[in-house]
Amino acid sequence: MARVLITSGPTRQYLDPVRYLSNASSGKMGSALALAALQMDHEVVIVSGPVSIEYPSAAEVIQVVSTEEMLDQAMREFERCDGVIAAAAPCDYRPTEVARQKIKKQGGEISIRLEETQDILASLGELKTDCQWSVGFALETSNGHVQALAKLKQKRCDLIVLNGVAAIDSDVNSIQIFDDQGDVVMSAEGSKIDLGVKILCTITDTLMTKQQ
Amino acid sequence: MARVLITSGPTRQYLDPVRYLSNASSGKMGSALALAALQMDHEVVIVSGPVSIEYPSAAEVIQVVSTEEMLDQAMREFERCDGVIAAAAPCDYRPTEVARQKIKKQGGEISIRLEETQDILASLGELKTDCQWSVGFALETSNGHVQALAKLKQKRCDLIVLNGVAAIDSDVNSIQIFDDQGDVVMSAEGSKIDLGVKILCTITDTLMTKQQ
Repeated sequence: MARVLITSGPTRQYLDPVRYLSNASSGKMGSALALAALQMDHEVVIVSGPVSIEYPSAAEVIQVVSTEEMLDQAMREFERCDGVIAAAAPCDYRPTEVARQKIKKQGGEISIRLEETQDILASLGELKTDCQWSVGFALETSNGHVQALAKLKQKRCDLIVLNGVAAIDSDVNSIQIFDDQGDVVMSAEGSKIDLGVKILCTITDTLMTKQQ
Repeated sequence: MARVLITSGPTRQYLDPVRYLSNASSGKMGSALALAALQMDHEVVIVSGPVSIEYPSAAEVIQVVSTEEMLDQAMREFERCDGVIAAAAPCDYRPTEVARQKIKKQGGEISIRLEETQDILASLGELKTDCQWSVGFALETSNGHVQALAKLKQKRCDLIVLNGVAAIDSDVNSIQIFDDQGDVVMSAEGSKIDLGVKILCTITDTLMTKQQ
């Protein structure tokens, strides 16, 4: 039995007390992965941004809003976990300034500067011991294979799951899993529930088995 | 019996196929208003942005994503309605350019230019005949009274409901309703369900009664 950390859902980066940057990640893939891991008798802790779905009741769920909060909680939890599956879609940009009062319309264009947030999976990759594994997700709209492999290297992942923009807020998905040699170790499409099981089986076969 | 148009929930303005600007409006106030209107035997049509709540099944619901879509649908529906309650929190800014591919992180800051979207309630105010009424919502973080009255004039509303940022995604709210003389015609706090009834009663007393 392993203890598995799953990051899930979007994060939000506020421009002012009302407006924020985000994305339509639903948490469905994270929830399906949690369900599959629990069915295999693993312990599951989920760090999730704001979602409207319910996670499996047997999972421990830590709710966060911003990428900074998700990073903090994931770093803290990862120490006690055997591995992480980073299914979240955290905002990778945040406004350089957050207005204290609601920005009033002035009648013209405004410009906002955005800076990169700290990469959660890369940060976990730096923490990762030889006994731990990490699995990333890449959502790409072009050059998926190349981008996914670059992410795997940069974030020190053991496996990376490539999916497309159609995955967002959908009940179905189409994925390819690459290992750190760049080989496709699994390719499938179907419901996120079914894919959750397949991804967990791949992790078990390629990562958990090696550790024993 | 009246036919009431209710705008509800947030809208989203995409920067690229993944990232968008939005706010945490839940649609709960819009749903409570719909419920109250239905209980008073009015017909209800809701134009709603993406929300996770369920609207009353007796209401006609038109789902939209962007402010432009909400504007189009609200303009179309308003012609067949006696009045509008604009409880939505549509994005009032949109990126001047929408990237076709996911914006890749470059390692530094980026700047995005935002332009104002067309104001939905002001557009309905221009369409409004002498037989129709409109009720706006103002969510302000400072100078609420002054800002709310300015909005009422600018958008040609008959009444405006002032609430604060604590209202967002909450089950409770604290409101003041101003008429076009700047007088407070109702002030209340409590659950959004209860406030929905009180707002509808105020509309009935001050707007629907006048029409008859």
